[in-house]
Amino acid sequence: MEHEPSGAPAPEPRPGKPMLRALAGEAVWPPPLWLMRQAGRYLPEYRAIRQEAGDFIALCTAPELAAEVTLQPIRRFGMDGAILFSDILMVPWAMGQPLRFAEGEGPVLEPLRTAAAIDALDPARCAPRAAPIMETVRLVRGALDTHAPRVTLIGFAGSPFTVACYMVEGHGSRDFATARLMAFEEPAMFGRLIRTLIEATTQYLLAQLEAGAEALMLFDSWAGLLPPSQFRRWVIEPTAEIVRQIRKTNATVPIIGFPRLAGPMLAEYAQRTGVQCLGIDTTMDLRWAASAVRPDQALQGNLDPLSLIAGGAALEAETRTILGAMRGRPYVFNLGHGIEKVTPPEHVAALVRLVRTG
Amino acid sequence: MEHEPSGAPAPEPRPGKPMLRALAGEAVWPPPLWLMRQAGRYLPEYRAIRQEAGDFIALCTAPELAAEVTLQPIRRFGMDGAILFSDILMVPWAMGQPLRFAEGEGPVLEPLRTAAAIDALDPARCAPRAAPIMETVRLVRGALDTHAPRVTLIGFAGSPFTVACYMVEGHGSRDFATARLMAFEEPAMFGRLIRTLIEATTQYLLAQLEAGAEALMLFDSWAGLLPPSQFRRWVIEPTAEIVRQIRKTNATVPIIGFPRLAGPMLAEYAQRTGVQCLGIDTTMDLRWAASAVRPDQALQGNLDPLSLIAGGAALEAETRTILGAMRGRPYVFNLGHGIEKVTPPEHVAALVRLVRTG
Repeated sequence: MEHEPSGAPAPEPRPGKPMLRALAGEAVWPPPLWLMRQAGRYLPEYRAIRQEAGDFIALCTAPELAAEVTLQPIRRFGMDGAILFSDILMVPWAMGQPLRFAEGEGPVLEPLRTAAAIDALDPARCAPRAAPIMETVRLVRGALDTHAPRVTLIGFAGSPFTVACYMVEGHGSRDFATARLMAFEEPAMFGRLIRTLIEATTQYLLAQLEAGAEALMLFDSWAGLLPPSQFRRWVIEPTAEIVRQIRKTNATVPIIGFPRLAGPMLAEYAQRTGVQCLGIDTTMDLRWAASAVRPDQALQGNLDPLSLIAGGAALEAETRTILGAMRGRPYVFNLGHGIEKVTPPEHVAALVRLVRTG
Repeated sequence: MEHEPSGAPAPEPRPGKPMLRALAGEAVWPPPLWLMRQAGRYLPEYRAIRQEAGDFIALCTAPELAAEVTLQPIRRFGMDGAILFSDILMVPWAMGQPLRFAEGEGPVLEPLRTAAAIDALDPARCAPRAAPIMETVRLVRGALDTHAPRVTLIGFAGSPFTVACYMVEGHGSRDFATARLMAFEEPAMFGRLIRTLIEATTQYLLAQLEAGAEALMLFDSWAGLLPPSQFRRWVIEPTAEIVRQIRKTNATVPIIGFPRLAGPMLAEYAQRTGVQCLGIDTTMDLRWAASAVRPDQALQGNLDPLSLIAGGAALEAETRTILGAMRGRPYVFNLGHGIEKVTPPEHVAALVRLVRTG
């Protein structure tokens, strides 16, 4: 399954997986590459499996199928990272909060609005229900070890604040006003929810590591909704706590933090959470991001997924700007937001060629 | 109509309107205050007039009624700034693009998708249809001069990028993907739309100045959707051009730029557009913003409107943090986003007292 670098000069074989080397602070060039939501609806082979599985949760909890869709973009494009196919809401689902993915309207949870409902959550219930997800991790790791030994397996979870947003609101939202208002009006209650999520998320990520994940990513998609004082309390502190807890068991696993739309708060997040790598959203100038983090902290991002739909000159110009800004520092090429389902797969192939030829 | 400062010590009467002095670079304290969307649905007296007017466009183009709602929050709370009651989409409406405000779903425009439709737009058609809006400005200015001589009249427009987003998309959107994709795929065509808007917006703002506006604000609510290269091209350059054009006629009028969610790009926006004041959204640390602009450039913002719904301890803590960060520099107190319709008016009154007691 190891990819043919499609016309580009092959990178010099050096010891270690390229993505792990970049996450460890090495300026690997051309940079390792993967794309958020690289396993997904823009791929016909994904749509075929999705149809076979039935609903989305069934797919996430069917290890053979979930492993297959995880591996599809590795096979097709030769990405340097394979991210576990799952969803950030599988943690609340595993803790027993009713969840479904409604066609065209995204996730729907039974909203959590009372102290009693929050206190009833039990992180210990998470592990047994999440067992099939760990089996997926084992299957993917086995396949990569055999067929694609240069590819890094990335485990992930949602960060407590973002997951809490969905748990309280009950569905996606432009501003998650109900959840954020709870944080303002009932900080003790919201804080208990966050602490429960810190515990459940830590255990969930440690289980992924044990099953074979080699790097971890924490998605905080809605971090950017918060004013600075709240960002410190609900984003930086919980993330720092998860990182500390994981390091007690595994001192070296690289952790990627992605506080989407953090803006200038990125600097404080990078310093205080201790993550090895910062995911950067589409809006941020990567040169600014580089000035805001330690030189050994890797950056990951931040091509606009719309430029990948556009393709052609726009894609090439945006990609070259990013590569120019990141050359010479630890860096992982990625989008700044998940790939869109209308993306032509051949544009992804063109992007991979562009990045590999530097 | 001059307000009673409701329990707070009266500020020492000094020459000049407090808000104009702050915009000119003076560290006025307590800071002048107004709130984005301060004239709006959270006020019962607004809802009464809105019902009388019929639809939203009718209200925006009925000078007596629009002037009345502009003045309502001045009368009730004694704000230091009165912002013209209107909408950023009145410019495309005045240029002839069909627009309606649908109950509960926001603005609906006939979407602009072709080069022919863009080329057919004529900025010169704007002035006659916008005449009632200028009459509103004259009425408000007259009322303020007579009854509230310390209150600054703020005119405004949407910035070309944000207005173009609505014109192309045809309605509000989480990501304005159609408009942003046009910018990537058809930059020449999108650029013609932006140039038309630069011309129309400049004329529209100059007409407001002539009618009596004393400060101007450019709302770029969706600026934060753009990656840096596109932010420079579609946000910074058009704004800088409008500022240059206005300064040819009026060298001194203070202009407030509000590139919402600009993040670290704020620094470059502040430097290159030449605006006197930067509107800051809820997510940004004001101390960081202060470090990113010239010391004589005023800041305006950035209380989270949700903390104003919450009231009580959350409102007080957030307000004191902001005041602590801004004391000693030119600053205008405001929200970081428009006031929400469920906001209790008594929380607004409490906020005004808090700010006035410093």
